[in-house]
Amino acid sequence: MSPPSPPYVAVVGAGGPDVAGELLSDAEAVGSELARRGAVLVCGGLDGVMEAACRGARAAGGTTVGILPGSSRSDANAYVSVAVATGLGELRNGLIVRSADALVAVGGGHGTLSEIALALKAGKRVVGLGSWQIEGVEQAGDPAEAVASALR
Amino acid sequence: MSPPSPPYVAVVGAGGPDVAGELLSDAEAVGSELARRGAVLVCGGLDGVMEAACRGARAAGGTTVGILPGSSRSDANAYVSVAVATGLGELRNGLIVRSADALVAVGGGHGTLSEIALALKAGKRVVGLGSWQIEGVEQAGDPAEAVASALR
Amino acid sequence: MSPPSPPYVAVVGAGGPDVAGELLSDAEAVGSELARRGAVLVCGGLDGVMEAACRGARAAGGTTVGILPGSSRSDANAYVSVAVATGLGELRNGLIVRSADALVAVGGGHGTLSEIALALKAGKRVVGLGSWQIEGVEQAGDPAEAVASALR
Amino acid sequence: MSPPSPPYVAVVGAGGPDVAGELLSDAEAVGSELARRGAVLVCGGLDGVMEAACRGARAAGGTTVGILPGSSRSDANAYVSVAVATGLGELRNGLIVRSADALVAVGGGHGTLSEIALALKAGKRVVGLGSWQIEGVEQAGDPAEAVASALR
Repeated sequence: MSPPSPPYVAVVGAGGPDVAGELLSDAEAVGSELARRGAVLVCGGLDGVMEAACRGARAAGGTTVGILPGSSRSDANAYVSVAVATGLGELRNGLIVRSADALVAVGGGHGTLSEIALALKAGKRVVGLGSWQIEGVEQAGDPAEAVASALR
Repeated sequence: MSPPSPPYVAVVGAGGPDVAGELLSDAEAVGSELARRGAVLVCGGLDGVMEAACRGARAAGGTTVGILPGSSRSDANAYVSVAVATGLGELRNGLIVRSADALVAVGGGHGTLSEIALALKAGKRVVGLGSWQIEGVEQAGDPAEAVASALR
Repeated sequence: MSPPSPPYVAVVGAGGPDVAGELLSDAEAVGSELARRGAVLVCGGLDGVMEAACRGARAAGGTTVGILPGSSRSDANAYVSVAVATGLGELRNGLIVRSADALVAVGGGHGTLSEIALALKAGKRVVGLGSWQIEGVEQAGDPAEAVASALR
Repeated sequence: MSPPSPPYVAVVGAGGPDVAGELLSDAEAVGSELARRGAVLVCGGLDGVMEAACRGARAAGGTTVGILPGSSRSDANAYVSVAVATGLGELRNGLIVRSADALVAVGGGHGTLSEIALALKAGKRVVGLGSWQIEGVEQAGDPAEAVASALR
């Protein structure tokens, strides 16, 4: 008999070079805590919040899945364990949501908002850390609380 | 030489039997106005706001495209001119956004929010009529104003 | 009560400038015959076989749906009634198959083969006209026979 | 500097309980050889050829990615390291192809044929082992030769 499979938790948030340092350190702590608790981290595979979360998870021995918008695995950040190059553009946001049991949103713009909305629509738990204040999103005070809520 | 192709405008909003009557009449007026101005109406093809918008458009001689979540065209409301059965579930929301030049959101829940977010992310114009108050969404006072904004 | 909705038939085949003239005239005849018999024509929306089929259908008063690989409706040929810009690349082949009740393949390369295979996998009728000789594909001798088989 | 990322190779073939024993042992040997040579194995995540390939890869210490048609990770076979539940049905075949640098087809029906066709269309290397005889597919005599061709 195989052991119960691990939870998959998506960490979503902005990419790009302009993400605030506090969000990056929050994302890294979320990734680290998810790995410590045995969860597989799913994300969009790029830089910014996604990279920080992956770095935290990998440093703690975790597995990270990057579901990329483009068709080339080389777009993945260096901390992605397994990259899925979808070529779907922003439609891959829906795959991130489907792949995960729960979402932790760290900051984020409109792409992140689309993921929050799709997860709420699908009835999945969404935890926010400095992210959108949408009804149905549980607001967490810090990374540990966010992960605890996501895995509850 | 072919004439300039018509604009495609998505009308997004809630399905189901519980949509408020005022939203339905707004949606119908939006559909009617879009048709009157020569736009093709794109929507999710189901009931509620989608059906009301299609009914308005067809009554005014317009063309309506229903991009369905399921695999069967029979899910389309009776006012859909052309139905595309995607079998993609909520991922079809992203196709509605891609297919359209602009969005008019009439009320709506989390599915609608995902469409608003994807459209803003793609840099498309989003007009709201009693819908989500998200930065970047232009709020319209009535259906005619909503359509005028969407087609500007 | 609404009348029974029309059948949707996909016409698939190669795009590009190098398609043999005989295939183009076959495709045009298939489109024309589909329109004459009241079917909606679904295709990939581009040039070559797709354009020829749309031209035939439109000349006979039919409706044509172009499910495009790219994100811009301007890629559609001039005979597409309704264009859906998917941005999915070749994954849109699967949407063409899902959207249709049956397929007519006119010549074609590997993209066409993927559509034939997906349609057979989905249990849909596939008729070939100078196309791949795959078990399960009904071979037709001419366009009228192909359409008759597809609509049987 | 990170080391060069590993190649990703898809192993495609039939699922279900009726796959011939010889194909299963071939698939298992392909999986084992891919893992031994450091490749990540991508597949559809289900049973039959997919499960046999994953079992071979995991026994040799490799990583296996299952890109599932349904929305539930519990559909994955027990030898999948990372499961992506897409909910796309057969459209996920296109994601398997996109995710991989090359394909090894072991036997297979129409779903497999769609993957072969999409990979050839995308210009990726396709190696067949008792699979479809399509122009462009390299026929291999045994699992080791198939893997050597795929990784060339």
